[in-house]
Amino acid sequence: MGTTTRGASVLGIDIGGTKLALASVDPRGAVLHRSVVGAPAFDAGRMVESILELVAGGIASSRAEGLEVEAVGIGAAGFILWEEGLLMSSPNIDWSDVPLRDIVARSTGLPTFLDNDATAAASGERLAGIAKGIEDFVLVTLGTGIGGGICIGGRVLRGSRGTAAEVGHMVLDPEGPECGCGRRGCLEALASGTALEREAVRLAGADPSSVLHDASTSDPGSVTGEMVSAAARGGDAAAAAAFENISWHLGLGIANLVHLLDPRMVVLGGGVSRSGDLFIDRVRDTVAARGVPELVRDVRVELSTLGSEAGVIGAAAVAWEGIGGPPSK
Amino acid sequence: MGTTTRGASVLGIDIGGTKLALASVDPRGAVLHRSVVGAPAFDAGRMVESILELVAGGIASSRAEGLEVEAVGIGAAGFILWEEGLLMSSPNIDWSDVPLRDIVARSTGLPTFLDNDATAAASGERLAGIAKGIEDFVLVTLGTGIGGGICIGGRVLRGSRGTAAEVGHMVLDPEGPECGCGRRGCLEALASGTALEREAVRLAGADPSSVLHDASTSDPGSVTGEMVSAAARGGDAAAAAAFENISWHLGLGIANLVHLLDPRMVVLGGGVSRSGDLFIDRVRDTVAARGVPELVRDVRVELSTLGSEAGVIGAAAVAWEGIGGPPSK
Repeated sequence: MGTTTRGASVLGIDIGGTKLALASVDPRGAVLHRSVVGAPAFDAGRMVESILELVAGGIASSRAEGLEVEAVGIGAAGFILWEEGLLMSSPNIDWSDVPLRDIVARSTGLPTFLDNDATAAASGERLAGIAKGIEDFVLVTLGTGIGGGICIGGRVLRGSRGTAAEVGHMVLDPEGPECGCGRRGCLEALASGTALEREAVRLAGADPSSVLHDASTSDPGSVTGEMVSAAARGGDAAAAAAFENISWHLGLGIANLVHLLDPRMVVLGGGVSRSGDLFIDRVRDTVAARGVPELVRDVRVELSTLGSEAGVIGAAAVAWEGIGGPPSK
Repeated sequence: MGTTTRGASVLGIDIGGTKLALASVDPRGAVLHRSVVGAPAFDAGRMVESILELVAGGIASSRAEGLEVEAVGIGAAGFILWEEGLLMSSPNIDWSDVPLRDIVARSTGLPTFLDNDATAAASGERLAGIAKGIEDFVLVTLGTGIGGGICIGGRVLRGSRGTAAEVGHMVLDPEGPECGCGRRGCLEALASGTALEREAVRLAGADPSSVLHDASTSDPGSVTGEMVSAAARGGDAAAAAAFENISWHLGLGIANLVHLLDPRMVVLGGGVSRSGDLFIDRVRDTVAARGVPELVRDVRVELSTLGSEAGVIGAAAVAWEGIGGPPSK
């Protein structure tokens, strides 16, 4: 451990179903260094071990670079009990009721905070992203599923237990397609990356002129969001229509959120948002057309600018907030 | 003005489309006296005059009874800009952009606060109703339309401008019935008193055995919520089915609210809630069946207990909060 420290930092850890990412992040949200390992999502014990190894490595690297590590923030997909630091369950990981915050705190001796990944990402948008300086905004993360983070008066909303902002399970159409949660017509079933792929397969399967037609009919599971984006960029009508469909539902869902929360901004994040230029205008048009005019007219709908680092920056922002640092400081 | 005051009070004013109600309310939310006049809703100038007369009368009566009037709270249906004290518009009153807070403050010389009626009602539920002591809850008011109030961490959510908690304009079914707002399938179009009457007319019109059949076919506009309640209580199948339908949509809407806000309680208020014994069980069942189990299982769904005084108590609660009094004190 060096006696000269270059500065203060926290570790942000993003727990996904397929990988664990860690970054050392400074008070302004800049990523100082970063590492990623595969996630043994099938085995809760090994998952915890991998996290502890990753954190220990992160602390060692940080100190080797002369950084003081002040805290650890963890963002995980799933239902979190905030006060207890407990992960109740995750959509893609085989664990339940893991007291992850305290496990990491005991192992590191550092103040540790555990939050839902999308709620953490909202903290990240406020620290270093497009919502910097915005007190009231909603983040909608578009990936395999849909997550959400709500910021009210400069504070992230966690709700009475920690499970607030489950934007993806807002039912928009009770007779709509089945959702991974077992219900029907949730926003996640209508506007996630998974919904985009499903719509593309359906539309391209019925359209022999689509570049996705053969894959959609012979091996629907092979059609990825990236393929749908590429096809839409190339002018494929079926792919473009798939984006239209998810955009329309996204616009409806955003209008509902604006009516409920009166934010200044709605930020679209997550992997699908990196193709946002293909659909953001349609989303904005739907919000304007389907929202109550007095309520939606001054609300900005924007794409996240944090890219693939949104997860670790978000987790780090939770750590900074937890120890009373930025952005409130 | 007496030199001996019995105690502190505020005035709460509830502005509706057909009447103006005022009450003098003590710090615990008890109504000390009350008056009601008709509302000249067709004429903004006369509406303001009527409000000022009512307030002046309320101040005089309060002082005659030895009460100190410390502030005035106003709850009004419609879109409110909180910081500006401005009423942008109301659904049933022909006015727009009325700086009502400052008009009343100038006339009375008292600190005055203007809030949306349903948001005010949430403050009332926290001061003196079933949500007393509950930090995180949502109020859904069921009347001609549907309003909402959201309380987070003991503070009422107004949003960035004051228009938050427009629960009634959450779209639940994009192909559903038309809403008064001009869109389709809003919760208000599916589960308000107006929706109850529409469903009863539709179902009773097709059911010659219903006690509402003749009225539904000959003069649909004559079928009131009270008639539907009375018929349902008498065992009328069509009336019971109308309650079933609104309860189901209400349950879906409440599940969405719980997923977004993670409250401890959802309170049903407004005129229709006074028939709540006819449908609360069905609402609770739908929330349990259609909500994500981890998120909804510990949430209480309850009926408001404030009855017809919910409006004035709510407005008074806003005044108490505004001057830093109960319930935070």
